[in-house]
Amino acid sequence: MPESSAVVRPEPMHSASYTAASRLQAAGLRRATTLFAESAAEVPLPQSPRPIVIADYGAATGHNSLVPIGEAIAVLRKRTRPEHSILVTHTDVPDNDFSDLFRTLSEDPDTYLKKDKACFASAVGRSYYGQIIPSNSVNLAWSAWSTHWLSRTPTPIPDHLLVAHSRDGEVRTAYERQAARDWHEFVAFRGRELSPGGRLVVMTMAIDSDGDFGYRPLLDAITDTLAELVGREMLTDDESSAMSIPIAGRRAPDFLAPFAPSGTFEKLSVQHLEVFHGDDRFWSRYRVDGKADQFGAAWSEFLRGTAFPTLAATLPADRRAGFVDHLCTGVAARLAAAPAEVRIPLAAVVIEKQRRLHH
Amino acid sequence: MPESSAVVRPEPMHSASYTAASRLQAAGLRRATTLFAESAAEVPLPQSPRPIVIADYGAATGHNSLVPIGEAIAVLRKRTRPEHSILVTHTDVPDNDFSDLFRTLSEDPDTYLKKDKACFASAVGRSYYGQIIPSNSVNLAWSAWSTHWLSRTPTPIPDHLLVAHSRDGEVRTAYERQAARDWHEFVAFRGRELSPGGRLVVMTMAIDSDGDFGYRPLLDAITDTLAELVGREMLTDDESSAMSIPIAGRRAPDFLAPFAPSGTFEKLSVQHLEVFHGDDRFWSRYRVDGKADQFGAAWSEFLRGTAFPTLAATLPADRRAGFVDHLCTGVAARLAAAPAEVRIPLAAVVIEKQRRLHH
Repeated sequence: MPESSAVVRPEPMHSASYTAASRLQAAGLRRATTLFAESAAEVPLPQSPRPIVIADYGAATGHNSLVPIGEAIAVLRKRTRPEHSILVTHTDVPDNDFSDLFRTLSEDPDTYLKKDKACFASAVGRSYYGQIIPSNSVNLAWSAWSTHWLSRTPTPIPDHLLVAHSRDGEVRTAYERQAARDWHEFVAFRGRELSPGGRLVVMTMAIDSDGDFGYRPLLDAITDTLAELVGREMLTDDESSAMSIPIAGRRAPDFLAPFAPSGTFEKLSVQHLEVFHGDDRFWSRYRVDGKADQFGAAWSEFLRGTAFPTLAATLPADRRAGFVDHLCTGVAARLAAAPAEVRIPLAAVVIEKQRRLHH
Repeated sequence: MPESSAVVRPEPMHSASYTAASRLQAAGLRRATTLFAESAAEVPLPQSPRPIVIADYGAATGHNSLVPIGEAIAVLRKRTRPEHSILVTHTDVPDNDFSDLFRTLSEDPDTYLKKDKACFASAVGRSYYGQIIPSNSVNLAWSAWSTHWLSRTPTPIPDHLLVAHSRDGEVRTAYERQAARDWHEFVAFRGRELSPGGRLVVMTMAIDSDGDFGYRPLLDAITDTLAELVGREMLTDDESSAMSIPIAGRRAPDFLAPFAPSGTFEKLSVQHLEVFHGDDRFWSRYRVDGKADQFGAAWSEFLRGTAFPTLAATLPADRRAGFVDHLCTGVAARLAAAPAEVRIPLAAVVIEKQRRLHH
């Protein structure tokens, strides 16, 4: 779920205005950005001309990372000379739209490339479930709204869109195993890439202390709209059943599992972990302006850029755009008819690598 | 004009088999690859864990650089330990298809990522007419079939597709100025990015000692086909006249101009310069097998991937694909009717940065 900035931009939502929606929502980014800036103040830095390296894992279009990275760079710049190069590497899967990413990096008002002349940007189009950046080279790492996407769909979910709301024990177990394995791998490879004393800040979906994954009003609206589309014969029962979203929330202990029992893993340790609730900013705005239509449209546009493409991908290519339009309309109408605050459980994890390498 | 490998692959050409065509043609890459491997043997290397950095300027899909970079890496690896990281950075304009590049890097049989475990790939989607990689960080740099593309079209060419064949003195002067400025800028920014003692190998289109830019049979076939399309009212006269290809060949002295009169510029000097004729491998194959249809189809497919998109871009989007198909058919037929060797003047330039930084 790419998002960008914690700045509230109260312009009205237009169709396809996903970027505006994601900028406005930006749940949890402020808290994680603070942790990231604190890390920037404390990590050891290489000597010039060796660049300071910042990695952004699962960058998508860059909208989740421009502001946090810009703030970290401002902190780093106070610790080093103006000409000391800072190299930011944004990673995502090969099919990511890197042209969009580079256009954002060059044109967005928030881009660090405009704010600091000794900053440079690069991209890596490879899955982060492997080592993709040179060993011991990353001084500061960021990953927001990405690591809840599993590396693969472990099994179909027969009774729901999301494993978090499935009542099938075997399905839940298969997903939990995949989520545990993916987190273990993600952390292990970052352990190789981080430089001694380097830190990684992860912000991702979580399961809160009530055992809740959240997003219930959105999921109900989607499920209900899919049923309507089946009823109108715009979708078959089989097509609807085959749709699922391979994301998993994790509980606080899940984040710690790779580090048990010693507290260290691949020379890494957890420096900070918190599970919290992100603000539903669409709800906050609705509470002020009472515009239910805008509330529904905003969440619907947000989902158009995040969950809906995954659902549409199971359909033949020529039906996807129409399907997404119908889904947006149906979800927006349902949310507007009964606005309700969306619970957004999130985790922020700060992982630190040992300062000295042991041979 | 992206190309990839000097390996001759004698499979038949299919429609849209541009990659196969470019792999087979690969004019000049062998010579430049040798210069690149020699440079890899001689450039100073950073100490581990600082990665050895290779830059590939104007990478397109990577097909012009996989084999040369793979050979350079093999040379570098003999000079350093197996675990010393090598980071390759491929640059191109933001609109380049980076997903295609990363798929090539992950899947191509020639990819260096499969041959050496301590190699890593990244991309930069920014124009190289600016500094886009950290200062003093590039140990070895490559640019093939890219720097003849001008940064902008300085003026329309009323009488020909290519400035090299225009008889309009003002147009020729405007292009020469732009080509000189672009080369000056390209070299200057690489001067900042190269590390002390680092080397840049450039292979690009040239004007030979006869003053010839080459490619005459191809240009005649294209010009003739465009006239046919105008005659058949598939293209207007104005549309045909508006088409041009903003590339410029350079003479040997043009490459030296930024370094005059002292021989150094931005701490750089020209270590090697040669202008030579690349082999027309489609012609060599035709001389063996006598298959004129394949000769025509091979060059036509090659142009489909290189020059034709530039011509088509001046038309409305819905007419481009059909236009390119007609152009391919017409050019293939004309070349097959009268096969002739294509002259391919090329330059290889090796530029070296001073070993020590002067303050």
